[in-house]
Amino acid sequence: MATVTTAQPFEPATPRLAAQLAFLTEIDKLKLVQRRSPLMDSSRRENSAEHSWHVAMAAITLAEYAEAPVDVDRVVRMLLIHDIVEIDAGDTFAYDSQGRQDQASREEAAAARLYGLLPDDQVAEMQALWREFDARESAAARFAHAIDRLLPVLHNFATGGGAWRAHGVHRALVAQRMEALREPSPKLWTYVDALLDEAVARGYLSPDA
Amino acid sequence: MATVTTAQPFEPATPRLAAQLAFLTEIDKLKLVQRRSPLMDSSRRENSAEHSWHVAMAAITLAEYAEAPVDVDRVVRMLLIHDIVEIDAGDTFAYDSQGRQDQASREEAAAARLYGLLPDDQVAEMQALWREFDARESAAARFAHAIDRLLPVLHNFATGGGAWRAHGVHRALVAQRMEALREPSPKLWTYVDALLDEAVARGYLSPDA
Repeated sequence: MATVTTAQPFEPATPRLAAQLAFLTEIDKLKLVQRRSPLMDSSRRENSAEHSWHVAMAAITLAEYAEAPVDVDRVVRMLLIHDIVEIDAGDTFAYDSQGRQDQASREEAAAARLYGLLPDDQVAEMQALWREFDARESAAARFAHAIDRLLPVLHNFATGGGAWRAHGVHRALVAQRMEALREPSPKLWTYVDALLDEAVARGYLSPDA
Repeated sequence: MATVTTAQPFEPATPRLAAQLAFLTEIDKLKLVQRRSPLMDSSRRENSAEHSWHVAMAAITLAEYAEAPVDVDRVVRMLLIHDIVEIDAGDTFAYDSQGRQDQASREEAAAARLYGLLPDDQVAEMQALWREFDARESAAARFAHAIDRLLPVLHNFATGGGAWRAHGVHRALVAQRMEALREPSPKLWTYVDALLDEAVARGYLSPDA
């Protein structure tokens, strides 16, 4: 593979298409943002682009567990765009309380720059979707968050502890994040709660003091 | 990161949820399927899971260039699932004529096994979506193919030749694949046609003999 640096862009016929292609080029960088979760075969850590694909697939597959009726396609769109801000703001580890303090302001600035690459009407559309996700008020946003929280648990369990073991995480801390599943998806919450007990029993996750 | 092999699954309350989680665990392997296209910063080759996310984002961003009215959410779903068969069948390089000969039968078997992990009603749904994509008959499937063909061109151009240079690909061969854009998206086809001329002028792509 050639290791040429990024080529000068070729200007398309319209400024609108140029803006859209600039956005699609910029978001390629999400593939370079590393998460803490390992792939399920433990071969490497996951990146945020492939995670976004996986959570979108999980939303489609597990849609029936949404307690309130949700527009699954809107959930999918939210999950596809929800991590784009990490290109500028980085991935904030779920159990990094310091990093989480200024997460909101860092992500707000990132959303303005990244979605701002698009034509104005599309900026508004993407920002609205991202804000809906972030506010966790609509049933769709709550279910999207539930699915987004479920996936790392599956990864950490499948890898015999994954990021939990690497960072000495206790059950209570994971259980606290899993509260996001209880109301939007009681069935998935019940499953995860039992899974956490099993993770403790197997030594994947530290028991509570 | 612990390098433990995949843990024994924890059986959930219902066989239905167990099947769905087995599917979500299995498709994690799409993150290990390497494509020929480089990332836009040339740092490494792209994998099929992150590509699936990127094409879904491209479909959302470029939806207005679909010549016939399409259900964009259906296009997104097709693009999210279209490469899952590569977990078993591998990624067939666009310009590998030998590999393309038995591609259909390899992918058919892969679809049966992979989607077959799901509960029956979901198998039928996923298979229908994948077959619709594969048949390229509906407007949605044609537009999905157009977007799927556009992305590698953007990657190869952005990296000053990428897989084109690495494999000595000629303009006519790329142009032939870009015919998939002409009818579903004349505006994107016109753009790409000019982009290929520019790629030849810059030495990214071999001129036709």
